[in-house]
Amino acid sequence: MTSVANFWAVIPAGGAGTRLWPLSRAGAPKFLHDLTGSGRSLLQATVDRLDPIAEGRVLVVTGANHRDAVAVQLPDLSDEHLIAEPSPRDSMAAIGLAAALLEREDPDAVMGSFAADHVILDDEAFAACVRDAVAAAAEGWLVTLGITPTHPATGFGYIHVGAPIDGVPAHHVLEFVEKPSVSVATQYVESGSYSWNAGMFVVKPTVLLDLLAESDPDFAADLRSIAQGGADAMAEIWPTLPKIALDHAVAEPAAAAGRVAVVPAGFDWEDVGDFASLGDLLDPADSGALTVLGDESLIQQSQASGLVIPASGRVIAVIGLDDIVVVDTPDALLVTTRERAQDVKAIVAALREAGRTDLV
Amino acid sequence: MTSVANFWAVIPAGGAGTRLWPLSRAGAPKFLHDLTGSGRSLLQATVDRLDPIAEGRVLVVTGANHRDAVAVQLPDLSDEHLIAEPSPRDSMAAIGLAAALLEREDPDAVMGSFAADHVILDDEAFAACVRDAVAAAAEGWLVTLGITPTHPATGFGYIHVGAPIDGVPAHHVLEFVEKPSVSVATQYVESGSYSWNAGMFVVKPTVLLDLLAESDPDFAADLRSIAQGGADAMAEIWPTLPKIALDHAVAEPAAAAGRVAVVPAGFDWEDVGDFASLGDLLDPADSGALTVLGDESLIQQSQASGLVIPASGRVIAVIGLDDIVVVDTPDALLVTTRERAQDVKAIVAALREAGRTDLV
Repeated sequence: MTSVANFWAVIPAGGAGTRLWPLSRAGAPKFLHDLTGSGRSLLQATVDRLDPIAEGRVLVVTGANHRDAVAVQLPDLSDEHLIAEPSPRDSMAAIGLAAALLEREDPDAVMGSFAADHVILDDEAFAACVRDAVAAAAEGWLVTLGITPTHPATGFGYIHVGAPIDGVPAHHVLEFVEKPSVSVATQYVESGSYSWNAGMFVVKPTVLLDLLAESDPDFAADLRSIAQGGADAMAEIWPTLPKIALDHAVAEPAAAAGRVAVVPAGFDWEDVGDFASLGDLLDPADSGALTVLGDESLIQQSQASGLVIPASGRVIAVIGLDDIVVVDTPDALLVTTRERAQDVKAIVAALREAGRTDLV
Repeated sequence: MTSVANFWAVIPAGGAGTRLWPLSRAGAPKFLHDLTGSGRSLLQATVDRLDPIAEGRVLVVTGANHRDAVAVQLPDLSDEHLIAEPSPRDSMAAIGLAAALLEREDPDAVMGSFAADHVILDDEAFAACVRDAVAAAAEGWLVTLGITPTHPATGFGYIHVGAPIDGVPAHHVLEFVEKPSVSVATQYVESGSYSWNAGMFVVKPTVLLDLLAESDPDFAADLRSIAQGGADAMAEIWPTLPKIALDHAVAEPAAAAGRVAVVPAGFDWEDVGDFASLGDLLDPADSGALTVLGDESLIQQSQASGLVIPASGRVIAVIGLDDIVVVDTPDALLVTTRERAQDVKAIVAALREAGRTDLV
C-alpha cells in the first residue's frame, strides 16, 4: 500500500452514538471504543486505515471535551493537527475548518474526510477507492465514495449514480437523496444505480471552500479567518457559524450543478448505529451463538444467542434467551433484544430527563 | 398475639439457596437476604414472626461461617442462644442439638423448629397454628404443621393426613411421602387429605430425643453429651454425628408408629426456591409488569415484564423482554427467564468447576 502525495486525511470525530448506550456516552462516545474486538478503538482503526495513504498527514477535528481522550488514543498526532471545536457546529463547520487550515498549510493538498466511527475491514479495497477519488478530486471534483448497498437500508441517504466521467475513475452524481422508505430503498437497490451515502468526501480544500462560498460566502470567509487568526479568531467566530451538515451546505447544491463525482466502493462498511448492527458486524454469518465482545472467560451461558458485552469485569450468566443484548458497564446495565436495539435511544432520553446526566 | 408459656423457637439457619445465585451465595445464603422488600431478611422476618409467641425464647442454629452475620442481623440474640455448627451435619444434628440444650435449660420446654428461609406473611394465622401444635406437643406428640396445598407442586414432600386426634387440636399423620410426580401430586391435592411438608416440627425436646434414641441411641446420647460438655464436647463429638435429615431419622419412623400429629395450616407459605417462585411471591396477581425488588429509581424500562433485582446500585435498563429475570450484584450478573429459573443451579456448578469459588 503506497502513499498518495499531498493527500490529507481529515477525521471528524463526533457523534454521541446514543443507541450504543451504556457503552457509548456523551463523555466517551462511540469512536473512542473498540467495537470490533481488534484492540483498537474505531478512531484508532480509522487512523490506522488512513495512515499508509496519508503518510502521517492526518488531521482530527473533535469536540473540546474529547480532545484529551483523542490525544491519549493518538499519541503520534501533533497538537496542531488535533483541532478542538469549542462547541458543536455540525459537519460543515468541522470539515470546512479543516479545509481552511489545509489550504494554508499545503496549497497542493487533496483532503479526504472520513468519520471516526465507521467500520471498514478491507483496508486495501478502501485505499484503492481513495486513490481513485484523489485522482478525480485533483481535477477539481467534489468526490464522494458510494458504498454498494447490500440490502434496502432505510437508515442511510442514497447517491444516484450517473454515467462515468471522461478521464477520471469516477461517475457523475445525479442526486443525493434522503433516507428512503423500505419500498423506495428496495427500488434503489434493485436498480443498481444507487449507492449508500457514507458521508465520505475527497476534495481539494479550496474547491470545497469555494463551493461553500457560492451558497454562503460569509461562512467560507469566516472559516478562512479562523484558520488565519488562530485561537482568538476561533473563540470569537466559531460560536457564530451556522449549524449545517456538509451534505446540505455543499454536496447537494454541487450535485445539482453537476460538480460531484462518485467512486463506487465495494468494500464492507458499517456505521454500527446500534447493538443490532454491531451484532451483525461481529457475527456476519448469524451463527445462532452468543457473541461476546470482550473477555469471553467472564461469560457463563446456556442456550443463549445474541450479543453480550462484559465491560465491567463482572461475571455474566445468560440462560435461555435468544437474540438477547446485554451490555454491562461499571455504572449502568442494558438488557434488551436485537429487535429492540433502536429503543435504547429512548432510555437515554429518559435518563437525561430524570437528571441522570452522569450516566448518558 | 399472646405468648405461649415455655415455647421455644428453634431456627435452623442453613441451606445455600443455589438457585437464587447471584443474590444468594455460600457466604451470604438466602436466609440473610431481604427477598420480600420488607426491609428485613428472611431470618429476621422468621424471628419477628416467632418472637411474640416465644417472648424472646429463640435459639438459632447456623454454620460457623455464618455465625457473625447472624449475630449482626439479630443483635438481641444472646451468645448462648446462637449455636454455631462446626460443620454441616444435616437437620437431625442441628435440631437435635437444640433439643438437647433446651432439655437442660428448661425441662418444661416445648420447642418449635422453623426454617430461617421460608416466607409466611400472615403472622396471626401462623401463631394460631403454632398454639395448636404446642397444645398437642404438650401431650407428647411429635407435631408438624401441614400446609394446605394450592397446586400440585412436585418440589415438596407431602403429609398424608388422618383422622382428628381426641382431645388435641390436631390430626393423625398416616405417612410422610417423598416429592411426587405431577400426576401423583394432582391426586394428592384433589383428595383433600394431603398437606405439604414444610419441615416445621413442634415437640417437647425430650420426646424428640427419645424418639431418636429408639432408632439410633448413640446419636441421641451424643447430642446430650454435647449439650452437657460444652465447647470441648462439641469439637470432639460433632464431626462424628450422622448426616441425616430429621424427617428420615425421626419423623417417618414415628409416623409409621402412629406418634406424629399434624395441625392443618391454611396460611400462605413460600420456600422461595428460585427466581420464578420469588417472582410469584412478589407479584401474586401476575400483573404483567416488571417487578422490582430493591430501589425502583434504578430501573428504566420499556415493555418489560418479569423480575429485576438491582443489588449493585447501578442503573438497569430493560427493553422489550417478557418474563425476564435480571439479578445485578457487584461482582456477578444473571440474565435469564422465569421459565429457566431452575437452571441457575447449573451455572453455579459450572462456576465452581471453573474455580470461581469467590463467586458462588
